[in-house]
Amino acid sequence: MLDIAVIGCGPAGLSAAINARSRGKEVKVFGAKLCSPALHKAHRIDNYLGFPGIRGEELRQRFLDHARAQGIVPSTEAITAVYPMGDYFELQLRQETVQARTLIITTGVGIARPLPGEVEFIGRGVSYCATCDGNFYKGKRVAVVADSPEGEEEVNLLAQLADRVWYLPLYQGEYRVADSVEILEDKPAELAGSTRLERLVLKSGRELAVDGCFFHKEQLPATQIVPGLALEDKHIKVDRDMATNIPGLFAAGDVTGRPYQLAKAVGEGQVAALSAARYLDARR
Amino acid sequence: MLDIAVIGCGPAGLSAAINARSRGKEVKVFGAKLCSPALHKAHRIDNYLGFPGIRGEELRQRFLDHARAQGIVPSTEAITAVYPMGDYFELQLRQETVQARTLIITTGVGIARPLPGEVEFIGRGVSYCATCDGNFYKGKRVAVVADSPEGEEEVNLLAQLADRVWYLPLYQGEYRVADSVEILEDKPAELAGSTRLERLVLKSGRELAVDGCFFHKEQLPATQIVPGLALEDKHIKVDRDMATNIPGLFAAGDVTGRPYQLAKAVGEGQVAALSAARYLDARR
Repeated sequence: MLDIAVIGCGPAGLSAAINARSRGKEVKVFGAKLCSPALHKAHRIDNYLGFPGIRGEELRQRFLDHARAQGIVPSTEAITAVYPMGDYFELQLRQETVQARTLIITTGVGIARPLPGEVEFIGRGVSYCATCDGNFYKGKRVAVVADSPEGEEEVNLLAQLADRVWYLPLYQGEYRVADSVEILEDKPAELAGSTRLERLVLKSGRELAVDGCFFHKEQLPATQIVPGLALEDKHIKVDRDMATNIPGLFAAGDVTGRPYQLAKAVGEGQVAALSAARYLDARR
Repeated sequence: MLDIAVIGCGPAGLSAAINARSRGKEVKVFGAKLCSPALHKAHRIDNYLGFPGIRGEELRQRFLDHARAQGIVPSTEAITAVYPMGDYFELQLRQETVQARTLIITTGVGIARPLPGEVEFIGRGVSYCATCDGNFYKGKRVAVVADSPEGEEEVNLLAQLADRVWYLPLYQGEYRVADSVEILEDKPAELAGSTRLERLVLKSGRELAVDGCFFHKEQLPATQIVPGLALEDKHIKVDRDMATNIPGLFAAGDVTGRPYQLAKAVGEGQVAALSAARYLDARR
């Protein structure tokens, strides 16, 4: 079991990881490919103390190098759900589960907002993992919405189980999907139903009668993967120790609120890691 | 009038200053000589993201260089009192006063604790500035406690005004003071009196009957220089915007509480500066 799992590999996540290591904790970082797209794109950064006038991409590389020097290489496996189990967390990946005693969420902002109805129907028709939930849809009708080609694997798995599969790729390219899959050049707009999901409404106005809708997203908003996490103004609510309302769960960086700034994220990542370490030590 | 005055030139103070500049604010930094003695002494720092395994002194120099590149050179003039004036602050230096619309305190920890009785008698016998308050002690008896040779200037000024002057230097060296000054090889232990200061009790047990006691310290605890500042566990109480209980007054770094760490200080300095900038912009 991990001591600390970090979701997100931007400045807050990497800072949390190196500080967890400095306290001798077993840590693993899960994040999307670029780790920090904002840093990658930044032309020049002047307000991170110690690096006057540095290019964002150079700083991003230095951050990753620093982490690597301490043995931390972020995994790009997406976490599709988090279950607080009392004294540890169960993290649902697409192919496996991982256990961690504490969790630090540093997923940033700018992740696509959930669709109307999406959060309401999680577990009642909405899923983020075909490997995990596909079997519930044997002989049924499902739609798959994906922001990257990795979604095609999910579609093809579902094509073997479900009666009918629609695919809505939100990216450009060749789609390598089973012949039985119907590819739609449309976008999802809304999820509707009564006690369970019944319809996926598309931008064009067309409605698909579905039993399930699978979303494949590179990174999921924390609010969607952790049930019961308290928010404040759409950000994760934290105290000065970066603790959330769930014991053992901490957050840092943009996901906790403004200002959306580098030094704040790095500082909060440090505080979150040291708080998690203290939490662990108190329970030993 | 300054937009932002920063007291303290450690990582939090310099980070606040460069971020104030990034928002186009007129800023001045006041700090003690080394700016960050802890950083100066640190053999190796591994948990400030971007600088794996750097020597503390090298990082301290880089921080000062970064500030200098943005035109920020910390002043070593000590601030002996701060008066909140409603919509600005009056900062008392030894020889002059400075006005600032907002104030950020980043004075760190590890500053000598006040003596028993010291805070109680501020303005009623205890002073931190002979130039400012010396005239109140014409013909009276005063003691001067100093942690550096700069205190000798204060003693000599008081020797011209007071009837009797005791000097308690807390440093080693040659003491260049007027002949009338009595130098004591002893240490202050406690200040006592009823409505005003009446006695300075020394470590040896000896008691001096004094009307005034002047302290010359390189840096004063914020709690002693700002009347009415709210504390929590001996640290300045701040919210997530690094705002204190006094409007326009912010704090960052170790002075706001644990963990006493570099990245936390840098991040909080940034947040404090951006909060001060927002406070200023809202009042324009």
